[in-house]
Amino acid sequence: MADLYLALLHYPVLDKNGQIVTSAVTNMDVHDIARSARTYGVRGFYVATPVKTLHALVGKIIEHWATGYGSTYNETRKDALSVVRLATDLDDVIIGVERETGSRPVLVATSARPGADRLGFPALRRRLADSADPHVLLFGTGWGLAPAVLNRVDALLEPVVGPTEYNHLSVRSAAAIILDRLRAPR
Amino acid sequence: MADLYLALLHYPVLDKNGQIVTSAVTNMDVHDIARSARTYGVRGFYVATPVKTLHALVGKIIEHWATGYGSTYNETRKDALSVVRLATDLDDVIIGVERETGSRPVLVATSARPGADRLGFPALRRRLADSADPHVLLFGTGWGLAPAVLNRVDALLEPVVGPTEYNHLSVRSAAAIILDRLRAPR
Repeated sequence: MADLYLALLHYPVLDKNGQIVTSAVTNMDVHDIARSARTYGVRGFYVATPVKTLHALVGKIIEHWATGYGSTYNETRKDALSVVRLATDLDDVIIGVERETGSRPVLVATSARPGADRLGFPALRRRLADSADPHVLLFGTGWGLAPAVLNRVDALLEPVVGPTEYNHLSVRSAAAIILDRLRAPR
Repeated sequence: MADLYLALLHYPVLDKNGQIVTSAVTNMDVHDIARSARTYGVRGFYVATPVKTLHALVGKIIEHWATGYGSTYNETRKDALSVVRLATDLDDVIIGVERETGSRPVLVATSARPGADRLGFPALRRRLADSADPHVLLFGTGWGLAPAVLNRVDALLEPVVGPTEYNHLSVRSAAAIILDRLRAPR
């Protein structure tokens, strides 16, 4: 089974007008996605931002729950946050996974937008079950990953769609659903 | 197909020590679950709290996105929040659904804890597809729904489990996964 990683990129992402921006790291993203990652056996969850003061913020969150007051108040948070790693950008994520697994990871981007040549959930589920290569699922904040990221990935995952036309899930909800579709026991 | 409703109860719920408490309404719960509800065709999402000042808070959130600055800044939030309704408690939810649909709803509780006589996801999915009765999925905040609620429901849904022993998803993530399992097109 492939080692599965997640990366939440805060740059380069799009804003609502399609401009490339750096988004802020959100406390709730770190917690919620860490808990989903831990539930579905993800090996590492990279929070990637080039803003060094936000590294310090995420470091403080982790420290609070890992060794501070939170570690005794709620041990399940400590457990979840043990999968969180800090990174600067996508290259830093790739280096981190390569260092940890010895292999260059396969990059799979997620997107709420439909398009040509999307990898289906059943196909990626089989690939993760059969492959020995580490895989990284990339998630964008703001209004999604910038083309500079999408142009570098090995595959683009099909969007999560429900029975309506509405496709504005939070990244926290989308990550949870995607992990469930790819890794829930059947 | 059954009309599907969600209710997020803030009382009576358990704290980490198993005591019955009233939890605070969280802004992110309202937004994330509303967006998931809207994606999966949920007819109404009840935010239930007996605390009247929190009704005012949720009312302000909705107003901001429905008619205030947020309504032009981000129309997709307005759309999602259109499914949100305020309620005092479970009885108030039942009355609301009955008023809207003309039928007393079937109550299905969610829980992260395994136990006897749990309804499986495939069975509930079929029931929702075939039934004409409105169904309400109940979610607890804090450490979960109190026994006083669980003792009143028609069915208890099996917990969401991944391939690990960790079962501490956020209620936002659990709601997203549960809706996807019950309502995603196949």
